[in-house]
Amino acid sequence: MATEVINLKDKAGLIRDLHAYKGVAKMNNYDFKLVKAKREFIWHKHPDTDEVFFAVEGSFVIHLRDKVLSLSPGDLVVIPKGVEHKPVFDTQCTVMLIEPEGTVNTGDSGGDLTDDHVEWI
Amino acid sequence: MATEVINLKDKAGLIRDLHAYKGVAKMNNYDFKLVKAKREFIWHKHPDTDEVFFAVEGSFVIHLRDKVLSLSPGDLVVIPKGVEHKPVFDTQCTVMLIEPEGTVNTGDSGGDLTDDHVEWI
Repeated sequence: MATEVINLKDKAGLIRDLHAYKGVAKMNNYDFKLVKAKREFIWHKHPDTDEVFFAVEGSFVIHLRDKVLSLSPGDLVVIPKGVEHKPVFDTQCTVMLIEPEGTVNTGDSGGDLTDDHVEWI
Repeated sequence: MATEVINLKDKAGLIRDLHAYKGVAKMNNYDFKLVKAKREFIWHKHPDTDEVFFAVEGSFVIHLRDKVLSLSPGDLVVIPKGVEHKPVFDTQCTVMLIEPEGTVNTGDSGGDLTDDHVEWI
């Protein structure tokens, strides 16, 4: 990939489809992916890696078993390896995920929402 | 570290000293560090890792040998492993660096600006 400046909102503006993972940057073996979402996700965990959520546009929550995290633009959270979480996007949001390449969105839960495809934009 | 929401501008507001690296999040073995800067840095490279710069407050440039990258808030760039770069902060900026723990700010160049200390805030 060329060394170029990436503006997150500009990249978000290119995304037309919901719930499709769009790669915008790669650091070593980690992917930085934008996704536009408006849905209740499922409970899941990633047994092998921490995962970062960074709020780019809109506000959303991530349920943990013992609390609820509320994120607005400029907020980030690290969901530790093995911790169950359920993101809920009541209104349309743009989120940047940072996680190792190949990380599956539904972790070890599987199901209909499982999607490990990344389109690079 | 507790699983908590981190607002980058709120964290930046806690920083009083320039050029001191403040850890705000850890994802696996990667540190997310804020630094307030107003200085011309030195040419250096990191032989073993890519490095992410994310502009939180203020605008700055990163010189590469073949071009100059200009970053404003909401912009990020990945400096690839082994690529020489020189960040220049003409006005005071807050930057978030994402890189493996133990990464030295001056890479393999050394010199007076070398600093591998991270204070967690």
